[in-house]
Amino acid sequence: MSLLPLQPGSTIGILGRGQLGRLLALAAARLGFDVAVLTPRAYAPDAKVSKRTIVAAYTDTTALEELASISDVITFEFENVPASALEHLARLGKPVAPGPRALSETQDRVVEKCFLNAHGIETVAFAEVAAATDIAPALARIGAPALLKTRREGYDGKGQTWVRSASDAEGAFAAIGSKPAILEAKADFVREVSVIAARGRDGAVTCYPVGQNRHENGVLRTTLAPAPNHASVQASAEAIARRVLEGLDYVGVLGVELFELSDGRLLVNEVAPRVHNTGHWTMDAGLCDQFEQHIRAIAGWPLGATVPAFRVEMTNLLGPEVDVWPEIAAEPGARLHLYGKGEARVGRKMGHVNRLRPLSG
Amino acid sequence: MSLLPLQPGSTIGILGRGQLGRLLALAAARLGFDVAVLTPRAYAPDAKVSKRTIVAAYTDTTALEELASISDVITFEFENVPASALEHLARLGKPVAPGPRALSETQDRVVEKCFLNAHGIETVAFAEVAAATDIAPALARIGAPALLKTRREGYDGKGQTWVRSASDAEGAFAAIGSKPAILEAKADFVREVSVIAARGRDGAVTCYPVGQNRHENGVLRTTLAPAPNHASVQASAEAIARRVLEGLDYVGVLGVELFELSDGRLLVNEVAPRVHNTGHWTMDAGLCDQFEQHIRAIAGWPLGATVPAFRVEMTNLLGPEVDVWPEIAAEPGARLHLYGKGEARVGRKMGHVNRLRPLSG
Repeated sequence: MSLLPLQPGSTIGILGRGQLGRLLALAAARLGFDVAVLTPRAYAPDAKVSKRTIVAAYTDTTALEELASISDVITFEFENVPASALEHLARLGKPVAPGPRALSETQDRVVEKCFLNAHGIETVAFAEVAAATDIAPALARIGAPALLKTRREGYDGKGQTWVRSASDAEGAFAAIGSKPAILEAKADFVREVSVIAARGRDGAVTCYPVGQNRHENGVLRTTLAPAPNHASVQASAEAIARRVLEGLDYVGVLGVELFELSDGRLLVNEVAPRVHNTGHWTMDAGLCDQFEQHIRAIAGWPLGATVPAFRVEMTNLLGPEVDVWPEIAAEPGARLHLYGKGEARVGRKMGHVNRLRPLSG
Repeated sequence: MSLLPLQPGSTIGILGRGQLGRLLALAAARLGFDVAVLTPRAYAPDAKVSKRTIVAAYTDTTALEELASISDVITFEFENVPASALEHLARLGKPVAPGPRALSETQDRVVEKCFLNAHGIETVAFAEVAAATDIAPALARIGAPALLKTRREGYDGKGQTWVRSASDAEGAFAAIGSKPAILEAKADFVREVSVIAARGRDGAVTCYPVGQNRHENGVLRTTLAPAPNHASVQASAEAIARRVLEGLDYVGVLGVELFELSDGRLLVNEVAPRVHNTGHWTMDAGLCDQFEQHIRAIAGWPLGATVPAFRVEMTNLLGPEVDVWPEIAAEPGARLHLYGKGEARVGRKMGHVNRLRPLSG
């Protein structure tokens, strides 16, 4: 077991490739850490900014043991890593953060909502759907329209579809691959907000100002942070985040997506046990960004400052939209981040731009 | 020859390892570029954040050709790369930026001062010293004490010594290795300042606010930027930088160290044809930092914003001083940068800290 706080020069292992792993690796490098990555896919973006890349399935125990042998602490970039991989690493005596419980409580949407409700955190009404025939009675209970989602592995609007009436049941269930599912009531929200929170190894909790999000087709388009009138929701969002972090005995950064209702109440839409796209604005806000914050937390360092010097509007560059990079590069006050991905498939997250505004703006 | 502006996904070749190359590589990654490095030393810090590292001497033409074959544009992190290496790369038809002239005019301190004076830029009085016997007449002309420096390859106070009288001549010349030298008059300065400037492929020039520097034993300790009362020197510093950039037909970032005299005049102490330690404050100032600026310039991108949102105090962490990292990590408003170097030898630049202050402070 490594001694904490982790010394610069130590190696941070990351499960998973992609832009989140890449941005974690860059933040780790800034603090003088080395990074080793285990990814099932070769030529992943983070292969280019890491000391060592192991290409193997997450379930490959030999590869996990190799990662453990060269890493001082291990984390993951995305919640769709098998919990068994984390458990195997933990058995090898390596610190893994966040711990396996962060995955086991959040990978399954039904389990996650039960966890939240059990901790006094409100969500939309929901129902378990094991077969198409479960949909009609569920609709009768929670109302239509409702959103049918696979219990596991959906993200960015994948694996979900709207159900408008009982007659949609068969088609909707087939559309999501006839997998175990959850039916979620439609939230009558005035806006979507999120809070990025961190918890250190010593139990310290810190939250960034709440951001206001706009999704299109289930994919995040923009985050504006701090959200307009964020003071009205900041305290309740932080209270929710703290309850989630403590309930999971969490170490690291976590994103909580929230629906703000017209009466000011907040419902949790989703918990992401990782750095989060709605936290990318922190990279240029004049504070400790969410990637460094995650590295600090898992390394047992004190958490960094979360008070922004700017209001930031973050816009995702999806697929061929990334071709506007020359205009963004020429725009004063725009900070461009590209992820080094090759093919700009439609909808693929290729990069983002943070536009800086005065805090009072 | 690559088409410019260089597309994200292209590869930037860097000659030289060390913290400057590492920080350039991280900035390039942020913009979606790949990086390939040629370094004479294995296990260099930047080996860990680059796609490809070639370990070979700068004079190894096979290695240079390999670098050229995988790079779309090539730059260097430090001026002590042989000009012949850049010339060889240029002959291979690869864009090299800054061009060979940046080295040929700045590698030799006598040539550099002649270049500056020829462009109407003031320096201290100086004399060429080929042998110890040249020192007495030089001292008689420029006054004592004076600083004896090797013409080439010194940095951070290495290869230089003070000469207080003609009787010091033999000892001083031996102390710098009996190499071709320059004797420089002592500047009667009120403070040391520097300006970091950039010139794009289109000839556009931009400068950051002047910083105020403090050296100890020839090594930079701190930069405070913008310098107090920087408005008093900003215009003349920018005029000097522009003349240097245009005189060298320069592309990239360049640092100019200046002595401010009591009458407000600026003398150029040294020109560094590269990103510069006195520009590290830009990394946390809420603008386009000098590393991204250099990448933008050599890639033919528009130059980024240089107006800071903070006053920044940059302090170098030299040798074992880096052991204070836990305190810095816990300090609000302090941004820590560590370079991933193993051994903390006395005086070695291990990292730096940027402390953010209000601009008005």
